Amino acid sequence: MKEKNVGIIGGMGPQATIDFANKIISHTKATIDQDHIEMLIYNDPKIPNRIDSISGKGENIAPVLIRNAQKLIEFGADFLVLPCNTAHYYYDEIKKNIDKPFLNIIDESIQYLHTSNIDKIGVIGTKPTVELGLYQNKWRALGHQCVNHSGKIQEITEKIIAGVKANNTCCIDQEEQMYFFDFFLKSKINALVMACTELPVYFSKKDSPIKLIDPTLILALKTIEFAGYEVR
Amino acid sequence: MKEKNVGIIGGMGPQATIDFANKIISHTKATIDQDHIEMLIYNDPKIPNRIDSISGKGENIAPVLIRNAQKLIEFGADFLVLPCNTAHYYYDEIKKNIDKPFLNIIDESIQYLHTSNIDKIGVIGTKPTVELGLYQNKWRALGHQCVNHSGKIQEITEKIIAGVKANNTCCIDQEEQMYFFDFFLKSKINALVMACTELPVYFSKKDSPIKLIDPTLILALKTIEFAGYEVR
Repeated sequence: MKEKNVGIIGGMGPQATIDFANKIISHTKATIDQDHIEMLIYNDPKIPNRIDSISGKGENIAPVLIRNAQKLIEFGADFLVLPCNTAHYYYDEIKKNIDKPFLNIIDESIQYLHTSNIDKIGVIGTKPTVELGLYQNKWRALGHQCVNHSGKIQEITEKIIAGVKANNTCCIDQEEQMYFFDFFLKSKINALVMACTELPVYFSKKDSPIKLIDPTLILALKTIEFAGYEVR
Repeated sequence: MKEKNVGIIGGMGPQATIDFANKIISHTKATIDQDHIEMLIYNDPKIPNRIDSISGKGENIAPVLIRNAQKLIEFGADFLVLPCNTAHYYYDEIKKNIDKPFLNIIDESIQYLHTSNIDKIGVIGTKPTVELGLYQNKWRALGHQCVNHSGKIQEITEKIIAGVKANNTCCIDQEEQMYFFDFFLKSKINALVMACTELPVYFSKKDSPIKLIDPTLILALKTIEFAGYEVR
């Protein structure tokens, strides 16, 4: 099988895109440069706010996402990935407008969870990801359970996401961190899905008493396999 | 001033390219995604071995570097950077074939060192970087001093570079690490230049008794300024 290169529709946010690329490289079985995956990363942080686009308050970003996807294909990308959970709201619309395979971070993560010994999950992410149930609807459709978290959990999560985008890792205080972990410990979930690509950047530097699921890593591993390489 | 986007001629190696992009993002003054630099990263690890190209043993990689530079410009890059010291052997040849500004990691680092309180340096990197004096010639031309290191230092340096490319950070043993730092401590240098972009990836995880200079970081900071952004 000929190896494929990957086009990464990035910039949402820029640090999360780099975290994703880093996960691909550090999990590829390689001994020299030439063993690694060829990747084209369009790290475009100028894409307008996803949340305002989905709510209708801001510019509709679907055309920009489609344009960036098409530009990557013109450059030579064999398949595409989009390391941003919220932007997967536009997944079908992008897919319709391109003629190359396009991996889906939500579907890959749901499939991974479904084949693990996991039933009840929590899902943290941006407001649209959580409120529109981008993960929860697909998870419940498979007969599994989700916990609905409190408004304070959502607020803390959004502080963390904003902190990563601003290069600020001290974005929540001790009380908020305790509330966060206590809430999910009491809710007796099997795992907490970090359904925003900023979140693994933050939590990679923290100890967690809860099993955390990292969709960025799941998509990275799938990307390695789909490109025709071996995971180390 | 209109902000510029940057095209990164990457993949040499892939992890070093990501380290460079990460340094740009984490040093840009930003509070939201849209404050960050737009970047297009062509992380092409299939570019043949630079050392064999320079020695004449392998394929001449100049045409591939020029092609990748031109592809980035066609995509829309306003200026280019090449986070690989060894490949700067081909800097002039690439520059002749493109019509956009192209920052030079060696010149930027030499200028940084020259304006610091530094005179005697060590330079570690690949064999061609060291033997052809890519840094040393320019440094000595400014009236400064360089130490020539032993064959064993070169061997240890090459083990570290290969280790990073293979995702192996335990690539040298305790005795080698002691020899390495002892050599440069005894040589009474003011600073040691990590003149291969794999080296900062390795040394960022180590304590060093010697002042280390990171050309990847110097180029990242220059990229932020040249693109019209503020360093944080």
